[in-house]
Amino acid sequence: MENLKIGIAGLGRLGKIHAKNIAFRIPGACLTAACSIVPAELDFAKNELGVTDLYTDFDDMLAKADIDAVAIVTTSGVHCEQLSKALAAGKHVFCEKPLGVNVEECLEAEKAVADHPDLVFMLGFMRRFDPSYVYAMEKIKAGEIGEPYLVKAVGVDPVKSVEGALRFAATSGGLFIDMAIHDIDLMRWFLNDEPETVYAIGSSYGFPQFAELGDAEAGCALFHFKKGGMGIVHTGRTAAHGYHIETEIVGTKGSIRISPIPEKNLALLYNEHGVVTECVEAFPERFAEAYLAEVAEFVDCVRTGRKPDVLVQDGTASTRIAFAATESFKTGKLVEIK
Amino acid sequence: MENLKIGIAGLGRLGKIHAKNIAFRIPGACLTAACSIVPAELDFAKNELGVTDLYTDFDDMLAKADIDAVAIVTTSGVHCEQLSKALAAGKHVFCEKPLGVNVEECLEAEKAVADHPDLVFMLGFMRRFDPSYVYAMEKIKAGEIGEPYLVKAVGVDPVKSVEGALRFAATSGGLFIDMAIHDIDLMRWFLNDEPETVYAIGSSYGFPQFAELGDAEAGCALFHFKKGGMGIVHTGRTAAHGYHIETEIVGTKGSIRISPIPEKNLALLYNEHGVVTECVEAFPERFAEAYLAEVAEFVDCVRTGRKPDVLVQDGTASTRIAFAATESFKTGKLVEIK
Amino acid sequence: MENLKIGIAGLGRLGKIHAKNIAFRIPGACLTAACSIVPAELDFAKNELGVTDLYTDFDDMLAKADIDAVAIVTTSGVHCEQLSKALAAGKHVFCEKPLGVNVEECLEAEKAVADHPDLVFMLGFMRRFDPSYVYAMEKIKAGEIGEPYLVKAVGVDPVKSVEGALRFAATSGGLFIDMAIHDIDLMRWFLNDEPETVYAIGSSYGFPQFAELGDAEAGCALFHFKKGGMGIVHTGRTAAHGYHIETEIVGTKGSIRISPIPEKNLALLYNEHGVVTECVEAFPERFAEAYLAEVAEFVDCVRTGRKPDVLVQDGTASTRIAFAATESFKTGKLVEIK
Amino acid sequence: MENLKIGIAGLGRLGKIHAKNIAFRIPGACLTAACSIVPAELDFAKNELGVTDLYTDFDDMLAKADIDAVAIVTTSGVHCEQLSKALAAGKHVFCEKPLGVNVEECLEAEKAVADHPDLVFMLGFMRRFDPSYVYAMEKIKAGEIGEPYLVKAVGVDPVKSVEGALRFAATSGGLFIDMAIHDIDLMRWFLNDEPETVYAIGSSYGFPQFAELGDAEAGCALFHFKKGGMGIVHTGRTAAHGYHIETEIVGTKGSIRISPIPEKNLALLYNEHGVVTECVEAFPERFAEAYLAEVAEFVDCVRTGRKPDVLVQDGTASTRIAFAATESFKTGKLVEIK
Repeated sequence: MENLKIGIAGLGRLGKIHAKNIAFRIPGACLTAACSIVPAELDFAKNELGVTDLYTDFDDMLAKADIDAVAIVTTSGVHCEQLSKALAAGKHVFCEKPLGVNVEECLEAEKAVADHPDLVFMLGFMRRFDPSYVYAMEKIKAGEIGEPYLVKAVGVDPVKSVEGALRFAATSGGLFIDMAIHDIDLMRWFLNDEPETVYAIGSSYGFPQFAELGDAEAGCALFHFKKGGMGIVHTGRTAAHGYHIETEIVGTKGSIRISPIPEKNLALLYNEHGVVTECVEAFPERFAEAYLAEVAEFVDCVRTGRKPDVLVQDGTASTRIAFAATESFKTGKLVEIK
Repeated sequence: MENLKIGIAGLGRLGKIHAKNIAFRIPGACLTAACSIVPAELDFAKNELGVTDLYTDFDDMLAKADIDAVAIVTTSGVHCEQLSKALAAGKHVFCEKPLGVNVEECLEAEKAVADHPDLVFMLGFMRRFDPSYVYAMEKIKAGEIGEPYLVKAVGVDPVKSVEGALRFAATSGGLFIDMAIHDIDLMRWFLNDEPETVYAIGSSYGFPQFAELGDAEAGCALFHFKKGGMGIVHTGRTAAHGYHIETEIVGTKGSIRISPIPEKNLALLYNEHGVVTECVEAFPERFAEAYLAEVAEFVDCVRTGRKPDVLVQDGTASTRIAFAATESFKTGKLVEIK
Repeated sequence: MENLKIGIAGLGRLGKIHAKNIAFRIPGACLTAACSIVPAELDFAKNELGVTDLYTDFDDMLAKADIDAVAIVTTSGVHCEQLSKALAAGKHVFCEKPLGVNVEECLEAEKAVADHPDLVFMLGFMRRFDPSYVYAMEKIKAGEIGEPYLVKAVGVDPVKSVEGALRFAATSGGLFIDMAIHDIDLMRWFLNDEPETVYAIGSSYGFPQFAELGDAEAGCALFHFKKGGMGIVHTGRTAAHGYHIETEIVGTKGSIRISPIPEKNLALLYNEHGVVTECVEAFPERFAEAYLAEVAEFVDCVRTGRKPDVLVQDGTASTRIAFAATESFKTGKLVEIK
Repeated sequence: MENLKIGIAGLGRLGKIHAKNIAFRIPGACLTAACSIVPAELDFAKNELGVTDLYTDFDDMLAKADIDAVAIVTTSGVHCEQLSKALAAGKHVFCEKPLGVNVEECLEAEKAVADHPDLVFMLGFMRRFDPSYVYAMEKIKAGEIGEPYLVKAVGVDPVKSVEGALRFAATSGGLFIDMAIHDIDLMRWFLNDEPETVYAIGSSYGFPQFAELGDAEAGCALFHFKKGGMGIVHTGRTAAHGYHIETEIVGTKGSIRISPIPEKNLALLYNEHGVVTECVEAFPERFAEAYLAEVAEFVDCVRTGRKPDVLVQDGTASTRIAFAATESFKTGKLVEIK
């Protein structure tokens, strides 16, 4: 079988990760084109990855590049438009989260995907491909914790990157849309159910700027699921110790907790502070393997004619839920999720 | 200074713990009388603790025993009546939680305490005296985590004792009143604030009997506090691994988490399962030191003329909040806490 | 049965711990006399513990005090003489480690104990009474790790107390006698065997004063046991993080490791350093429960006519082994232990 | 710069790992030839990796293949001969440990390397490239634990693979040569010093077959280093919980401990056993990243004209030390290391 030829759109922080993985680390794939409106990003593609087929315009790449598939790692606002165009151009699509910036866009994306049943579309919920989450799901499927009924998720960015968070606070959609979307996907995945009600609260605590921008520094949401299950999400922007992603799945016969200590590696320091575990600093470090595995899965799906487990509908559902949480946070009321 | 002479009422599982502590381990206190309607409990007091002044009637003990103070460890339904009588009889009172079985009773208790400003009244929220919680509060007061704004509490009884839980499910007041009351007190204590809204959910998962009895096997509640803080309580009856009490306090500059692994002791087992930490089995094991420390504090307050930090009002407030959570759980609605 | 009346000799740091335990926390025991050459220590006994029968001379206490037993917590050099005198005076004896300052003294102590088979003698190897070590031994006896064949022990004092260590370096007998004696006892206890060969090394690393005083700042010893088992001891004076006592027992079917993180309590701090566990600072904090339990066992042995498990011979054997390790350290040679 | 063309010799368990890494995951490298005496291994190279230039004879590959470098992952007994031949043929060489099966061979290898100063030779001490070990070395170089003076190393294979260990026990060189060689290299690396004396002991405990074959099931060695430092190695074949590689570096200002719990991933299981961490099963799982990083380093060294940090002399030194430990184990005597 021929290698899958992929063109990447967007080579920012996460785009570079995907580009390097496609270029060098995924058997069966090759990076043959790159598109960005940022000249330095195209230089990176050329000099670091050896990609010579470069574009500043997405439509141009679709029209001219010798590619089978597109990886969309651009700014959230254009995901939906670009994935529709790419599918229309007959390309398989790997698209970073979020699917769209509102539910309407997501439904459009669903339609575009449905119109091209022969093409593979996969959304970048990479946590499902992290070895620890994969392991948890295997244990659950093997019945080791009985029937899961509660997911407790924590997702807090490090305070070191708070300036970036503040810069985008007004346009990111807010904490529950920008940050909690992964946790929402995990709840749905592990409980195999949809929430019907949410109560979400939050505020600014150490950084009043978040409230001034209409966002929250930290927030909590409690979700009631249709079959009776429960979900808790604690999310925030200002963890002192690092990038804190923690998830617990509670079942009728036991629990699995992932990463209560977001360790950087296997080393413990014994020093004047006590016994210290340094923590991961950001998502590229924590989810390096997951970012690789998800695109490898995408490539394998295309090459073997399979459909990925992460569907376009997962993007819509998570977005709908995140918007409901945001509504609850803003109104102070319990919100039903249709 | 003379030793404080204490009479104990109730010598069940927890009553025995308090009785032994008073009899043998608290300098400045002696156990001089005991009251129980269960003959075997009085035998225990006589044979194991050497107490010879025994009563089957509480009023009788108040009237006749040579005691300065009373420790009330009886069934919840009589706490309020007994503490009022004891205060009226001029005795200092240590009373186990809950203060009363409803808010009205708690307010009566408040009045009784207010009517005897010269007497010490202390409620048994023992967790505040556990070394790890004391340590957490010290760190917080020293500013090490900045301003606390979120408390995440977990309190789950072991599945090994589920039969007892089922036996009392119909009369215990339910999960949020019976189990979450300690977590509610901790939230108030650490946040130094009162919740104004609660959303609580829960259900039966592995044991449908709980739902049949109108109770929940596990539940979660999200509390919004007046100054903007947040509280999450996850409580339940059926932990596979042991007695799980975990509390995290999140502040503007860091967090403190207590007992994410409810270890039995300092030993790790390396065996065919992996690396295993055995867990504590129940509250007497987990809070042995706290039960001792709280009564020592009570005794010291009496002997030195201080007031304890745990006030009768803490009992009322926690009860009020637990009832609001129960109402939310039962109605499915957001409930405001007056 | 009457309470056991105990006189204590020595009320230094550890003496105070024992004295308070005997006075207030051990059912069946009472502290009726105290002896010390330090006036402030006698003041402590009088004012804090209410002991009025006070002595500055050990013989005097033996002759005049109304006591059934003696707790010897004096300076090491007089242990052997005092225990012999106490036994000769018909008193049961609890004696702190070390049994004696050399093997000859230990053999004299053995003889004194043998001459009074009706009296209880117990040596203060308190670690055997620590809940985690007790738990480990129970697991081993239950066969959970198969047959133990290797003990790895670590005992390092905190650097915070290095000045005291330096002050006594010239007279303490040295690192392997002063520090490793507890680890040596644990190896013998867990392996149920005696070492026949030892190679010990060590030096000064951060504090050259130790070498100048003929002692080592840190050292390691490898012991070959008669039945083929192995023992490793790493001991030192200058741990940055606290008081580090760690023990692992490796068996044919698994291992048990006690306290790889010498946690102060159950709290984790999440702060700018990462995830931090504060550590215990010194032996009174780490072994508070063990110090209580061992004297309670002594009291129970006397009152019920049992013999304790820690025999005078354990003191002799550990001392002999510690001297052999010291000889190996000083000569650089492998030393056979007779 | 052109891609480095590598031919691999040996495609067993570890050979496959290296081959896949070279084929797919190391930018700047390509796998252009493969050599094995096992037909199935050549099929693997052809079918899984797309390598078509296949050999059953090493000399043949050297003579005919279009390669710049050779990766030697064959049986230990031919390493030395093959690396000499490869260097003589003008190829850069990456060679798996051990360098040779005795010190004489290592010295021959040193000579071969010295004779070709223009070629890169690198030995596969992969632990030095594991992220946790790299992190530890960085912390040490930054002075965070002061001056290192003690390394405590544990290396125990899982009991699950004991049959393989027994099969090779008679020919592997024995526990200290086959297993401890990595730990010996780490001690030398972290202490930046050479041991001058060793005492090593060991025996069979659960599997008498080891002793019958002249080997040990588990063993310990204590090393005295020239500058006064210390090294302890505990190694074995039969860990119940998994593949246990643990290393602690103790310095004058603190310690770093790597992997006291050899966790499989970041998940904790809370079940009827307590809180359980599953462990890694074998070296490919534990050191997957290190195996990749070391060959990437080799490739980068060749392409940029650098010399790797792991020298041929490291192989000789570690072998010499392992043989000295083996001699001590067999004779029961202290052995000086020349």
